[in-house]
Amino acid sequence: MQPLTPTERTALRRVPERGSFERERLEEILDEALVCHVGLAGEHGPVVIPMSYARAGDRLYLHGSSASRLLRSLRDGVEACVTVTLLDGLVLARSAFHHSVNYRSAVVFGTARELTDAAEKLAALRAIVEHVVPGRWSDTRGPSAKELARTLVLALPLDEASVKLRTGPPVDDEEDRELDHWAGVIPLRLEAAEPVRDPELRDGIPCPAYATRYGRPGA
Amino acid sequence: MQPLTPTERTALRRVPERGSFERERLEEILDEALVCHVGLAGEHGPVVIPMSYARAGDRLYLHGSSASRLLRSLRDGVEACVTVTLLDGLVLARSAFHHSVNYRSAVVFGTARELTDAAEKLAALRAIVEHVVPGRWSDTRGPSAKELARTLVLALPLDEASVKLRTGPPVDDEEDRELDHWAGVIPLRLEAAEPVRDPELRDGIPCPAYATRYGRPGA
Repeated sequence: MQPLTPTERTALRRVPERGSFERERLEEILDEALVCHVGLAGEHGPVVIPMSYARAGDRLYLHGSSASRLLRSLRDGVEACVTVTLLDGLVLARSAFHHSVNYRSAVVFGTARELTDAAEKLAALRAIVEHVVPGRWSDTRGPSAKELARTLVLALPLDEASVKLRTGPPVDDEEDRELDHWAGVIPLRLEAAEPVRDPELRDGIPCPAYATRYGRPGA
Repeated sequence: MQPLTPTERTALRRVPERGSFERERLEEILDEALVCHVGLAGEHGPVVIPMSYARAGDRLYLHGSSASRLLRSLRDGVEACVTVTLLDGLVLARSAFHHSVNYRSAVVFGTARELTDAAEKLAALRAIVEHVVPGRWSDTRGPSAKELARTLVLALPLDEASVKLRTGPPVDDEEDRELDHWAGVIPLRLEAAEPVRDPELRDGIPCPAYATRYGRPGA
């Protein structure tokens, strides 16, 4: 795959060794995470809102109610910054100063485009459901024309994006290495618990494997 | 506690039953989560960056390198939107349309102020370390004057904030309730695994209880 091209706003100035412009890294992060944070300059200042999403090829799909002001601003061509963060661990150094976090994050800049073609819109909604729960789409009642009309679906190109990450043990200053404080990493990950049936679910419908064995790719 | 006062940008227009202006809810979310997403209008458009933080009373503390452009913009009085999201579960409805996510999110708007007083700065850094790993601060080598000088610490007031959340089972349309599709919730939470020692840790330092029994408050 072609690497991403750094731009004025994606070039990493301070700690370049934590950056990556490999498209594989970007895709892995976007495919593993469940929530993105969408930022834009609103009428009354910056706004950052969490959203579901999906990646398909070199696009990110966002969706929501046609009545959502934020989605309508995006549809109208307001610039967006979409950030996805995976928290992998807490890094405990001997010095307070070198405490850190192991993480992988992706930042995407761009302008979204509304999907208006019904087939394209449906494919994007399918991608979002399948991103969140692989295997679920074919086990649902698909969207009606009315539901489709009430849903705004946007595509954001993955042209201008960057990845930042930190992995591995703490890095203390040489003179601190012999101190008595424990040092290491507390790994973190998102875990699924036993699915909880809808209390209104009618009898005789077993919980599907995609729900009982839920886990994120790469996690 | 006094409830939060809705403003032009925190008032919930579309789904008011998912909103809350109770200060307790806001504090619970901020105290449980580990990462916030800080958004601002940058020179080249909106920027959203993940950061550690801590809440103390009615303030949010942010920190980072004195060389960070983003932190310097915030220090210089650029308006910020800080969003914290906890993902509690995936909501599988019978219809694709009613799929949703159980979550709790807090959105804070405001302008940050730099902490310049050394004692105040130290207290904020302590709050951040203790927010991430309660019990850790007293088991570290504290910041030197030089390290303090290299760290920019900001306080953001929790005056203008709102909470949004969704809990509970899926809500399908009446006519879909008898469908054959399984419906329910897959609960999600952030779990800590066994701590990993720094390979350079000298012998005879046991892993402290705050690391072996790590968990978030409320989770």
